[in-house]
Amino acid sequence: MAERYRIALDAMGGDHGLSVVVPAALEALKQHKDIALILVGDETQINAALTQHKATPTDNLSIYHASQVVQMDEAPATALKNKKDSSMRVAINLVKAGEADAAVSAGNTGALMATGRFVLKTLPGIDRPAICSILPSMKGHTHMLDLGANVDSEAEHLYQFALMGSELTKAIDNNPNPRVGLLNIGQEAIKGNEQVKAANALLQGSPLNYIGYVEGDDIYLGNVDVVVCDGFVGNVALKTSEGLAKMISAHLKQGFKANLFTKLAALISLPVLKSFRNKFDPRGYNGASLLGLQGIVVKSHGGADSVAYANAISIARTEIIEKVPQRIHKQLENLLVQRQTA
Amino acid sequence: MAERYRIALDAMGGDHGLSVVVPAALEALKQHKDIALILVGDETQINAALTQHKATPTDNLSIYHASQVVQMDEAPATALKNKKDSSMRVAINLVKAGEADAAVSAGNTGALMATGRFVLKTLPGIDRPAICSILPSMKGHTHMLDLGANVDSEAEHLYQFALMGSELTKAIDNNPNPRVGLLNIGQEAIKGNEQVKAANALLQGSPLNYIGYVEGDDIYLGNVDVVVCDGFVGNVALKTSEGLAKMISAHLKQGFKANLFTKLAALISLPVLKSFRNKFDPRGYNGASLLGLQGIVVKSHGGADSVAYANAISIARTEIIEKVPQRIHKQLENLLVQRQTA
Repeated sequence: MAERYRIALDAMGGDHGLSVVVPAALEALKQHKDIALILVGDETQINAALTQHKATPTDNLSIYHASQVVQMDEAPATALKNKKDSSMRVAINLVKAGEADAAVSAGNTGALMATGRFVLKTLPGIDRPAICSILPSMKGHTHMLDLGANVDSEAEHLYQFALMGSELTKAIDNNPNPRVGLLNIGQEAIKGNEQVKAANALLQGSPLNYIGYVEGDDIYLGNVDVVVCDGFVGNVALKTSEGLAKMISAHLKQGFKANLFTKLAALISLPVLKSFRNKFDPRGYNGASLLGLQGIVVKSHGGADSVAYANAISIARTEIIEKVPQRIHKQLENLLVQRQTA
Repeated sequence: MAERYRIALDAMGGDHGLSVVVPAALEALKQHKDIALILVGDETQINAALTQHKATPTDNLSIYHASQVVQMDEAPATALKNKKDSSMRVAINLVKAGEADAAVSAGNTGALMATGRFVLKTLPGIDRPAICSILPSMKGHTHMLDLGANVDSEAEHLYQFALMGSELTKAIDNNPNPRVGLLNIGQEAIKGNEQVKAANALLQGSPLNYIGYVEGDDIYLGNVDVVVCDGFVGNVALKTSEGLAKMISAHLKQGFKANLFTKLAALISLPVLKSFRNKFDPRGYNGASLLGLQGIVVKSHGGADSVAYANAISIARTEIIEKVPQRIHKQLENLLVQRQTA
């Protein structure tokens, strides 16, 4: 039997814990014959959840006991100090120990980042890891980072995010020369804050395919592959998009439910509405990469359902196959050599 | 004849200049019998545009000559120094001189803010003016500021934005106690950057109806009336929303145009799609208020059409009626007294 890509799942994390992670694991195993999943968490509860889904541990679905759970609102420092046997921590420990090739968690983002950083350490040359996610665009999709791991990012951090995002995109999109843009509030050189202006100067001298400043609308217009920003700004852009999408979808639903005539219209419009829904289904974009660590960690949305969670597992699998941390590491080394010779 | 609310229009500003401003002025005069508009710009060109629209100057539509035009990409400092007879500058001069009660411009935002600040000055107690706009929400609409006038806002600035936004909302929404939220990347007290945390402390001790931190999605969910943020963050949120809305609308259009069947579906769905379009038509939200100046200045979107521009004129009219700068001034004075006695 060929070796499988081993992914440790924080089975207790997220808003729904086992009730999402177990069916997601079963779904992912159907989709990918080359993965082996490790359900990390309370053994008794995991076994019960498996039984409920008429499943049992197999050679590609194992259980690894962990006695604690990090709460969704727990402070990262507290989780790090008091939850050494949490499902989240143990899943990441398995990556560190080489017993898993990646970890996936729907738990508390701050705690996940702090734990990933503490256990796995950052790659040499990376000051701050970043969260990178995929968003749909008019011409495909866009990668965006940082989405909330860092606030007050300095120019050098933004530069590192650009490099990591570019490398991730090369790896998972099979795109040899991703266009990297720096998020700003205007395309003119005089606009923006000091950090952004300084990052712009750094990026102009970089080996990346840097296309300059982009604005918020460019995230969705499809003319840039990697959008780089501070975590505060990126998180606001992401959450704002979620809110707008929710409002539009609620309004459309309400409109089509208004009366018998509009219900008929909805019925006839089903193919269009379904294609619309599929295209923008956030579940198809679930799974944010924690970049800059010496190991692969993927964050699933806390409220993700099993379809969405299975997508995060697929992303982890791709990052294993494409050796994303190693690629970022190599790119950083090249850069270091380039800077030294410069 | 009753006195009219006098509004000076920068007739040459924006991407489309006279071809939008003149029909917008004629439209606004139809909507509001209590306004008088002053078209500021090149007299010959304005007369030609009026003729083209079969209109002539009247007692509520006058022309005020200005020989220069501020370019859309002109640096604010250059505009301030070299364009002393620009349509933008002269329109604001008319407000300063008391010959107009408000100015509206679709020109370059940076130049408009710089000119407004230079000519009209800020209200006592206001360090930085802010741009405030209205966005649709699930339960009505939300006011948001700053949308790009300031980057790197300090806590005290965010506090002033909150006060100005609250007062504007009281005035134009007839809402006696608007809920004010501070934009952050999580509702927990530990999240956010230093400026936001410090502003949170200031706002908690303020007389405003401060509801604490809100996130990006709250802009559209309708549980807050005034969203306060740094201009960099606000501008990104706004532009991101524009991009997402554009993508969704393009996808829906494309979907409904796919084949004969979907075209039929579109026809039957017309009432729903029209109501959807009306609800989210950005033209109905056009017109951002430059708050914190000793006078009323409203910024129309550079690419606005005449319907949108007429909406910006309506907003200027409401601000005149509601005496927005005077209300903000009074609120600031109350606050000063409160701080001194504290």
